[in-house]
Amino acid sequence: MIGAYIMISATPGSINTIVKELRNIEQIENVSVITGEYDIVVRVTVDNIQYLADITDRINTIKGVSKTHTHVIMRELRA
Amino acid sequence: MIGAYIMISATPGSINTIVKELRNIEQIENVSVITGEYDIVVRVTVDNIQYLADITDRINTIKGVSKTHTHVIMRELRA
Amino acid sequence: MIGAYIMISATPGSINTIVKELRNIEQIENVSVITGEYDIVVRVTVDNIQYLADITDRINTIKGVSKTHTHVIMRELRA
Amino acid sequence: MIGAYIMISATPGSINTIVKELRNIEQIENVSVITGEYDIVVRVTVDNIQYLADITDRINTIKGVSKTHTHVIMRELRA
Amino acid sequence: MIGAYIMISATPGSINTIVKELRNIEQIENVSVITGEYDIVVRVTVDNIQYLADITDRINTIKGVSKTHTHVIMRELRA
Amino acid sequence: MIGAYIMISATPGSINTIVKELRNIEQIENVSVITGEYDIVVRVTVDNIQYLADITDRINTIKGVSKTHTHVIMRELRA
Amino acid sequence: MIGAYIMISATPGSINTIVKELRNIEQIENVSVITGEYDIVVRVTVDNIQYLADITDRINTIKGVSKTHTHVIMRELRA
Amino acid sequence: MIGAYIMISATPGSINTIVKELRNIEQIENVSVITGEYDIVVRVTVDNIQYLADITDRINTIKGVSKTHTHVIMRELRA
Repeated sequence: MIGAYIMISATPGSINTIVKELRNIEQIENVSVITGEYDIVVRVTVDNIQYLADITDRINTIKGVSKTHTHVIMRELRA
Repeated sequence: MIGAYIMISATPGSINTIVKELRNIEQIENVSVITGEYDIVVRVTVDNIQYLADITDRINTIKGVSKTHTHVIMRELRA
Repeated sequence: MIGAYIMISATPGSINTIVKELRNIEQIENVSVITGEYDIVVRVTVDNIQYLADITDRINTIKGVSKTHTHVIMRELRA
Repeated sequence: MIGAYIMISATPGSINTIVKELRNIEQIENVSVITGEYDIVVRVTVDNIQYLADITDRINTIKGVSKTHTHVIMRELRA
Repeated sequence: MIGAYIMISATPGSINTIVKELRNIEQIENVSVITGEYDIVVRVTVDNIQYLADITDRINTIKGVSKTHTHVIMRELRA
Repeated sequence: MIGAYIMISATPGSINTIVKELRNIEQIENVSVITGEYDIVVRVTVDNIQYLADITDRINTIKGVSKTHTHVIMRELRA
Repeated sequence: MIGAYIMISATPGSINTIVKELRNIEQIENVSVITGEYDIVVRVTVDNIQYLADITDRINTIKGVSKTHTHVIMRELRA
Repeated sequence: MIGAYIMISATPGSINTIVKELRNIEQIENVSVITGEYDIVVRVTVDNIQYLADITDRINTIKGVSKTHTHVIMRELRA
């Protein structure tokens, strides 16, 4: 299993619509609208690195997404 | 309550030590070592924006931390 | 009360129009056209972190705004 | 008169000390500790562009300052 | 007199057209197509900081320019 | 001979099409879809620095390419 | 198998020493000194994502390395 | 002949010393202290791409230089 944080930039005015669409992707555990260079961060868990590209592709087809930036999790401690 | 993702840059060779220290800060829910410009991302929940500065200060006193970058969560959907 | 600096990128040729529109948002105290990666910086004061997202949304609906980047103020000294 | 926003990065643990020192520079009107890539933003007004370099130099001599990034104000509307 | 380097990003396929248009702006001394994050860098000299905004505006109206990033020269040594 | 790594940003949904088109450019040795700020990295070898601009121009005419960022190789050790 | 490009920043004057040390890490196929924000890029192939963190750790222990930035390869076409 | 712009970051308080040292490197035509992410930009002309690495190495040995970022000129129009 490979986890990742995917940062998403939205075109102006489309954040709320994107957030709704992201809820339909089951590999996404958490959706946060954040301050900073990117507008939204999601946490995903997938079976392998090739499948991570599929999820990124799927997010990129959502209307209003202008850019994604993936950070692969190499090690993790959860509370 | 205010949530935030804090990205942490580590000086070379200090990631593992920092991860151990982060476990002692109770407001931190999750610690991930990631690929990309920053080395570690943590998720925190605090009472107010001033207290967020205190957590950032505390993280900055950990030996090996060279920089932190805070993204405040403005809205959130959790699975 | 939460203060923030919001950096705004404009599509080419639209800075002056955006500046005029920003004057209609009462939470904005100050509008500066600056050199650097972003074109405009505004200072806002809002009641809470959720409302900050509303202001950012509103700025993003102004024609010509291509991106916003919010820096939340955690502590402040004013002259 | 030339105005500018100067973003300041601090070495870990030195933000509070830097903020105190900044209060002694009379051309600085406002000091904010912010979230994001930089730790502190100050607003300055100086007589000319050469003097702006002097203020930047002076800020850079404060212990704990690791980097400054100046955005010159080309036009401004104040509330 | 204020000098500046203005970095220009071009939409794909438009670099050559932009370079030709830049030759018509007399305040521009030098036009270089470069590797890196930006595509073109120009050097300008203007009378004051407000006029620098006018030049930036003019560059932004050239078809194919997607972004400009201005670095004001505070001091200079020329060979 | 001059070698370079060219990072490519794609508009949402166009990565696969771009990858196919890149295979038709003979100076490109290797095409990788990567995580991070850019979507694709290619390695090229060309005769001289002016020709590098031609390759960059050609990549920029591929539909879906939104930005390229070239890193020129100054020295190299290959396994 | 997971491939990655690792970008390396060097402290001033240490590029040549780092390049020599990188030759001792067998998972590294290629070492290039490049122009741009990072000084060196290497290509690695490892068995899994956890092992990628080990390679990054090992690179970070080389004297003169100040920062690494890993781009995981999700898909690849080789000439 | 290959031209390049080299952006230089300085450690706090060392800009003036670096500028003086840069005057001793004959391939450097122009030294400007600028606003923005980097502190100094120089323009160099060298015989070939390998020699560009030598100049970058030499700049990096100047006390106070913390980072350099080279932009190679692929085409140029001079006034």
